[in-house]
Amino acid sequence: MSDTLKQQALDYHELPQPGKIGVCLTKPAESARDLALAYSPGVAEPVREIARDPANAYRYTAKGNLVAVISNGSAILGLGNLGALASKPVMEGKSLLFKRFAAIDSIDLEVDLAEPAAFIDTVAAIADSFGGINLEDIKAPECFEIERALIERCNIPVFHDDQHGTAIVTAAGMLNALEIAGKSLAEARIVCLGAGAAATACMNLLQSFGACGENIFMLDRKGVIHSDRDDLTAEKAAFVIDTPARTLDDAIDGADVFVGLSGPDMLSPLQLEKMADNPVVFACANPDPEIRPELARETRPDVIVATGRSDYPNQVNNVLGFPYIFRGALDVRASTINEEMKMAAARAIAELAREAVPAAVLATYEIDSLEFGHDYILPKATDPRLLTIVSDAVARAAIDSGVAQLPYPAHYPLKSI
Amino acid sequence: MSDTLKQQALDYHELPQPGKIGVCLTKPAESARDLALAYSPGVAEPVREIARDPANAYRYTAKGNLVAVISNGSAILGLGNLGALASKPVMEGKSLLFKRFAAIDSIDLEVDLAEPAAFIDTVAAIADSFGGINLEDIKAPECFEIERALIERCNIPVFHDDQHGTAIVTAAGMLNALEIAGKSLAEARIVCLGAGAAATACMNLLQSFGACGENIFMLDRKGVIHSDRDDLTAEKAAFVIDTPARTLDDAIDGADVFVGLSGPDMLSPLQLEKMADNPVVFACANPDPEIRPELARETRPDVIVATGRSDYPNQVNNVLGFPYIFRGALDVRASTINEEMKMAAARAIAELAREAVPAAVLATYEIDSLEFGHDYILPKATDPRLLTIVSDAVARAAIDSGVAQLPYPAHYPLKSI
Repeated sequence: MSDTLKQQALDYHELPQPGKIGVCLTKPAESARDLALAYSPGVAEPVREIARDPANAYRYTAKGNLVAVISNGSAILGLGNLGALASKPVMEGKSLLFKRFAAIDSIDLEVDLAEPAAFIDTVAAIADSFGGINLEDIKAPECFEIERALIERCNIPVFHDDQHGTAIVTAAGMLNALEIAGKSLAEARIVCLGAGAAATACMNLLQSFGACGENIFMLDRKGVIHSDRDDLTAEKAAFVIDTPARTLDDAIDGADVFVGLSGPDMLSPLQLEKMADNPVVFACANPDPEIRPELARETRPDVIVATGRSDYPNQVNNVLGFPYIFRGALDVRASTINEEMKMAAARAIAELAREAVPAAVLATYEIDSLEFGHDYILPKATDPRLLTIVSDAVARAAIDSGVAQLPYPAHYPLKSI
Repeated sequence: MSDTLKQQALDYHELPQPGKIGVCLTKPAESARDLALAYSPGVAEPVREIARDPANAYRYTAKGNLVAVISNGSAILGLGNLGALASKPVMEGKSLLFKRFAAIDSIDLEVDLAEPAAFIDTVAAIADSFGGINLEDIKAPECFEIERALIERCNIPVFHDDQHGTAIVTAAGMLNALEIAGKSLAEARIVCLGAGAAATACMNLLQSFGACGENIFMLDRKGVIHSDRDDLTAEKAAFVIDTPARTLDDAIDGADVFVGLSGPDMLSPLQLEKMADNPVVFACANPDPEIRPELARETRPDVIVATGRSDYPNQVNNVLGFPYIFRGALDVRASTINEEMKMAAARAIAELAREAVPAAVLATYEIDSLEFGHDYILPKATDPRLLTIVSDAVARAAIDSGVAQLPYPAHYPLKSI
């Protein structure tokens, strides 16, 4: 980031008032009568109704459209473990994105606890306040235990976006990239460089879409995850394959797909040259990708490249997913966000990129045209159709898979949108 | 409450959308550039700045103007222990009042834990997210331990409004009532019916203002708290006096002041008749006071009566206090809300009632005039002068007592007001 951009970012956060989100009233509160309804004595009635039936909290409070963004700051963006308080700008930013893109009221909570059991107890104790929980920037392997326990203990959707949001948008882009490359996911040989929470979630979701476990070569810092390794967490162990390949050099030979969730410049031009025809490279390390798109294209004109950056084509951007996944889940009051909903979101995002792009969206980016192809495999973040198309797909999937608690479409879309 | 009012209250909470508060953006988030500053990659800068110095959270996030309203629902209004979720309309209502009266962003958190130690750990773990914590509707005696521990563990103001907010507004009214009655607090004989959290806090604050402990007759359900009782909590034991009085009948004889925080119709006309000249009666049981004001005045034309109700004169209403107490504390970043600040708030509220009332305030209540006297000892809730006068007094007291972390008036008043 340039010094100018850094200063602009600080100014944006500080001026004219600190922070990015605030609280607003959704009901009149001016007159004495307003206040008598909002607080004493009127408030006693909704209290009694909720005590009678807890589901009435969705009728009389803001719970049903309220998502908490919760972190302990143990894995902040690419910055690492800087603690709960330092993560607040990121979590506020996530809340801002929820509101901006899906009209979801969202508040950030920084939990100053590194140890999973205490973190879980804390979040479980306050979960009733919300309609959903978005976990964020929690380091692996703690994030797995935390998400698993909270899904079990809370009767609202709990979703670790670093895992599943990334996986959903990656899968959406991959479906389109392979379509353009003329390959099938079931037959694609996939190299995944990185074996953290995002990487395992991505590969799991690709398998739900038909990728074959034996074709997935996952590498952590020690190299390929193979059947002779004895140093693997349960999440990594699920990706053990029986192969003589030990290094990225070994694995990349003839591979159709490279997914990088590792670090800068980890994929060399020589390695890219060894990939199969029409290779697909998702170089998602941020801010510096595993291979620069210019270099990749220079090396292999037939490559399809995606990155995590907004200044290149094909940005794998979580904001294409999480606002609409929660929107759909909240609208039919889904009790959880299951695999069917994740797949529906990925499919809907992928399909949207195959549609013509509205002029207004093009104008946002000051570009003349975008057509489905090598340089446009994922929708643009400001595409307003995401809200209806992705949320709708998620809501329908929740209903079809039996986790929705409201019928469709009576309560959907939410009145406020 | 009439059935009509009950239905209006339910409709108010449900329509056109559930609840009373939402989240809004305080920064632009439309263009790709906005989003690059608000989230990735710009957000990394404020993260680094906060990791470098935690105080920067006040510069770059909404923390400094954000108050959590936290309850476990164990003592909801007059309704009792209905659980965390059922308390949500009350807590949302409190957040609404914070915003409406003092431009404080406030969010409610319902903590599903009855046991003090777990409740304390939970709130302490999330406290960094906020600039202040307002505890609400937590039953005694747990509320004492909870507040004490959280004040010690958090470096932001923690304030149990049911105790101290009530005490501050009661003290403000009492200072004025005694002035009108021509009595001194130091010499007044005070009967306090009720020995819960609000009652002990009220009597503690009156003592800070000069009331004499030996003149305070506190009664719980078993009668007068006297030196032969062996069934007292620490909070009640502080009010032990050496007296032959055992019942309200005994204690009320010749008393100057009655403060009721008990239940309906607990003070009989016969008992009121036994009080000294110009008696002061704060009949604060809600919704049905210890004695109806009409009946009190019929019995003793010289009485000054206050209640908790908005449909009688002299409402002891916490909203006269908590929004402005937090406003003043946040504006100078006070580390706590100490006795000096509570006293300053009470004095400022009392003094405001001695000023002429603006026509706009009179219009809100559809009344022609209000003059300091028997029927006007406390300001009206919608009086806009409370914001400047009370907040200012609290901020100055924080500075003078050494708990402010910002100079005055450089950072006060907050830009957003």
